[in-house]
Amino acid sequence: MVAIDVMGGDYAPNQILAGALSAAQKAIPIILVGPDQLIKYELSKLDPDWQSYPIQIQHASQVIYMDNDPVHSVRQKKDSSIVKMIELVKTGKASVAISAGNSGAIMVAASLILGKEENIERPAIAGLLPSMSDKKILAIDLGANTDCKPKYLYQFAELADKYSEKFLGIKNPRIGLLANGQEDCKGSFLTKEAFQLLKQSNLNFIGNVEPWDIFNNKTDIVVCDGFAGNILLKTLETSVEMFTHLLKKDLANTHTEKLFQIENIAKNLALSSTGALLLGVKGNVVICHGNSNSQIIEIAIKNYAQFFQQEKTLFQIKKFTI
Amino acid sequence: MVAIDVMGGDYAPNQILAGALSAAQKAIPIILVGPDQLIKYELSKLDPDWQSYPIQIQHASQVIYMDNDPVHSVRQKKDSSIVKMIELVKTGKASVAISAGNSGAIMVAASLILGKEENIERPAIAGLLPSMSDKKILAIDLGANTDCKPKYLYQFAELADKYSEKFLGIKNPRIGLLANGQEDCKGSFLTKEAFQLLKQSNLNFIGNVEPWDIFNNKTDIVVCDGFAGNILLKTLETSVEMFTHLLKKDLANTHTEKLFQIENIAKNLALSSTGALLLGVKGNVVICHGNSNSQIIEIAIKNYAQFFQQEKTLFQIKKFTI
Repeated sequence: MVAIDVMGGDYAPNQILAGALSAAQKAIPIILVGPDQLIKYELSKLDPDWQSYPIQIQHASQVIYMDNDPVHSVRQKKDSSIVKMIELVKTGKASVAISAGNSGAIMVAASLILGKEENIERPAIAGLLPSMSDKKILAIDLGANTDCKPKYLYQFAELADKYSEKFLGIKNPRIGLLANGQEDCKGSFLTKEAFQLLKQSNLNFIGNVEPWDIFNNKTDIVVCDGFAGNILLKTLETSVEMFTHLLKKDLANTHTEKLFQIENIAKNLALSSTGALLLGVKGNVVICHGNSNSQIIEIAIKNYAQFFQQEKTLFQIKKFTI
Repeated sequence: MVAIDVMGGDYAPNQILAGALSAAQKAIPIILVGPDQLIKYELSKLDPDWQSYPIQIQHASQVIYMDNDPVHSVRQKKDSSIVKMIELVKTGKASVAISAGNSGAIMVAASLILGKEENIERPAIAGLLPSMSDKKILAIDLGANTDCKPKYLYQFAELADKYSEKFLGIKNPRIGLLANGQEDCKGSFLTKEAFQLLKQSNLNFIGNVEPWDIFNNKTDIVVCDGFAGNILLKTLETSVEMFTHLLKKDLANTHTEKLFQIENIAKNLALSSTGALLLGVKGNVVICHGNSNSQIIEIAIKNYAQFFQQEKTLFQIKKFTI
């Protein structure tokens, strides 16, 4: 059972509901979390037969908005869709919670309600980045912690190492530290201190890595603070989008089939990071981009429902299909 | 006259010399800075007639390597190619210096020898990023200062604003601050403080910007610390490279002409940032990627020789041609 925050994201509730409905129509059982009446009204508009699909509704009267302070809003809005969604994971009613809402609030709610894993001070967002081959690279943190201490980066590495087998099918994965150069002397004050912690650990630390090393399969895991990770992820996605746009403009006289192929390759690059996992909390929580549309929500639901039911590695799901 | 550090970069001296020779063969006057005998020997191998082109040699017996400490090495190696190259700008013998070597050392040498501009504590690397249209976006800092104070980011904005007309042909340019979200509340401790400084200034500050806003022309200038800027630049370049690789693999049965077109678009995206300018010092200094090959060196020489001779805006040089 997948719990979905209907009120989270730039295109909530419509696009979230459309994506969730589409997943339910493909027999994936879901619980929609948000205002009861609104959900029913919107679903009826989308499909008058919505009740014939495996859809449950968990009422939540409040909304935590994108610009709300995470800690304050989670404490104040006990009946928000984010809090209620996380509670469904806590009570075991859902195996995974998915939201495109305020990622800071999701992290706070998950930490408070589910609890943090042992020796982890800050949960972090981990996602799979594409590479030159079919192999994916696990990146952590993609945006949960904009300001980090060196020990947090070390803990992110520990988390990624622990989950590597599950997500990548790799034991004792190579761990790289994102920096502005491969040389040991490169990096910021933060990464230089984290470098020493990682070097002294039992992890399979390979040193500093640059973006090129990630896409070129020189590492299995890339560790960074949430600010740099967020820039990395968004630059990758928008570069591909820009390139596709320019290709389509320049290749306008090309066969439609080729353009479709180009778009498909771009889609697989961009979507490979759809729905990142919050690691470090005791439960399965997936955070989607704020700008997720119905297609992306549907893909996230389908992939993670399958993943947490079968406990197969995400790596085996090579291509995301709509 | 363009001064070129023959010993800087991963492929020095061969690729640097090959690129410089090629530019000289197209009538661009150059001064090659490095070990006299080595330069003559290598040039003779490349072209026995090299003396018929506008090539001068400035002897420099020492080399500052990529992993050398910038401050220490500039102070110790007075006869290094980087120091000698910057001195040629100081004495007016060269209008611009170009190096693919240790960027920290180039920055230190330029600061010490040329001096810093008024009210600028840290020179920064500024480069032009591509966008969806033909317009380029001026990004600063792309890697000179991995650890910044809020006031440095403010000074980078002042520098970019000052040079905007020259580089972009734009007066009173829109200035965005790179962050992990557009909302005012997003950002790290560093960017949040810089945000306030920029907001209180007379600059045309438009707030936080994300990678998507850059490529989508929502801003003319993007300000960031050198760590994040370096990740942004390298992720853009390697994403395009990865995408091109995957396209070529998947479109293997396509007409050669189309593949050539794709490669050309990719090249124009990647090369648009070739040769970034060190702003904040009293002289023209261009820093190229450490992995620059002869082609890139030649393009940098040609573009910047043209730019500093004609004082036209870089924006007008829409496409880099080999």
